[in-house]
Amino acid sequence: MGELSRTTGVPVPTIKFYLREGLLPAGELTSPNQASYGEQHVRRLHLIRALTDVGGLPLASVGKVVEALADRERPLHDLLGEAADTVGLADPPEVDPASGAQARALVQELITRRGWQVQLGDPSALALTAAAASLLAVGHGDYLDHLDEFATAAEWIAAADLAFVARRTEREDMVERVVVGTVLGDAMLAALRRLAQTDASARRYPLPPAADAGKTTSG
Amino acid sequence: MGELSRTTGVPVPTIKFYLREGLLPAGELTSPNQASYGEQHVRRLHLIRALTDVGGLPLASVGKVVEALADRERPLHDLLGEAADTVGLADPPEVDPASGAQARALVQELITRRGWQVQLGDPSALALTAAAASLLAVGHGDYLDHLDEFATAAEWIAAADLAFVARRTEREDMVERVVVGTVLGDAMLAALRRLAQTDASARRYPLPPAADAGKTTSG
Repeated sequence: MGELSRTTGVPVPTIKFYLREGLLPAGELTSPNQASYGEQHVRRLHLIRALTDVGGLPLASVGKVVEALADRERPLHDLLGEAADTVGLADPPEVDPASGAQARALVQELITRRGWQVQLGDPSALALTAAAASLLAVGHGDYLDHLDEFATAAEWIAAADLAFVARRTEREDMVERVVVGTVLGDAMLAALRRLAQTDASARRYPLPPAADAGKTTSG
Repeated sequence: MGELSRTTGVPVPTIKFYLREGLLPAGELTSPNQASYGEQHVRRLHLIRALTDVGGLPLASVGKVVEALADRERPLHDLLGEAADTVGLADPPEVDPASGAQARALVQELITRRGWQVQLGDPSALALTAAAASLLAVGHGDYLDHLDEFATAAEWIAAADLAFVARRTEREDMVERVVVGTVLGDAMLAALRRLAQTDASARRYPLPPAADAGKTTSG
């Protein structure tokens, strides 16, 4: 266990706690006081750390992911979808019914137009509907004219996300990548969007020449 | 004031509070007990609502935005940048120094490669550096191989964002659009990314045919 702790950087008391909670499978007993831990334990500890530290998940949610992993018959698409759903999407705000109905129709049309194999009841479709409804409710519905540009950008990112996940073959590692990529990818994307906005704004609204620069050229 | 409240949906006591706090300019006195409110008041109330309800900003931050607006000499690029910086970016997590240095170099290279007119000290550049450092620290640095795909997607979004803002000509309306677009755009983008992931995953990892569907074709 000391070696497992050194390899992973997870303190021994934390490892013991994960064992008691059933999040980490027991090691193989080599003597009454000695157990041997292998690659699967290292892998599981990395996953738990990704879920708690990066994903900010409570232990109960970690338990659900571990349970889903235990079902080896579960289709990979389902498993990865559940992992993505556990992290990252903010609770959608309440919206007024009229904006909500209009937003739902727009999202349904978008899904049909893109040919996406998704359901209108998926948590992410509901989150999109809520954001669209908020835009309509505050009188900025014309932002939704750009929905397809957003969707194109999202498809670019999703292709990169899938490639990142598919570079692993163990289900446990793939789930870890879904969690890490979803959470840190959202953060990267929000930051990059602002950087690209700053650049676009600098080009569209150039700063007036500084006063002394003006003096130099005119005097 | 009753009419202003009906037009904007903001309750009269709230309007009085904004007047007392200096967030809303006083109306023009038409008699000792009567003031007239115009389009600028409607516009300002919409902005305050966008900042508080959509942006989730405390009143002190709303005051700073209002103050920035009062300086008519302030370059538009600056003003819009400040508005974007007030909302939406999560506080970056702490990272270890080695990952931080490597991440900073990657972000600097990206900015140079894209030719973006931004500074490495901008809040959004720091947020990007922190996310990249977290990826490196948890052993998933190869996700950053996709940084340019993310940047391309961000440029698409930023072009849409600028078009959305530029459809207004009053500075106050533009600031409102920056705030609304930044906050609700991040939410839309996160939701769309998951939808596009679900679609990409459904194509890459198709579900096995259901047991009874198999029976129908084989029997």
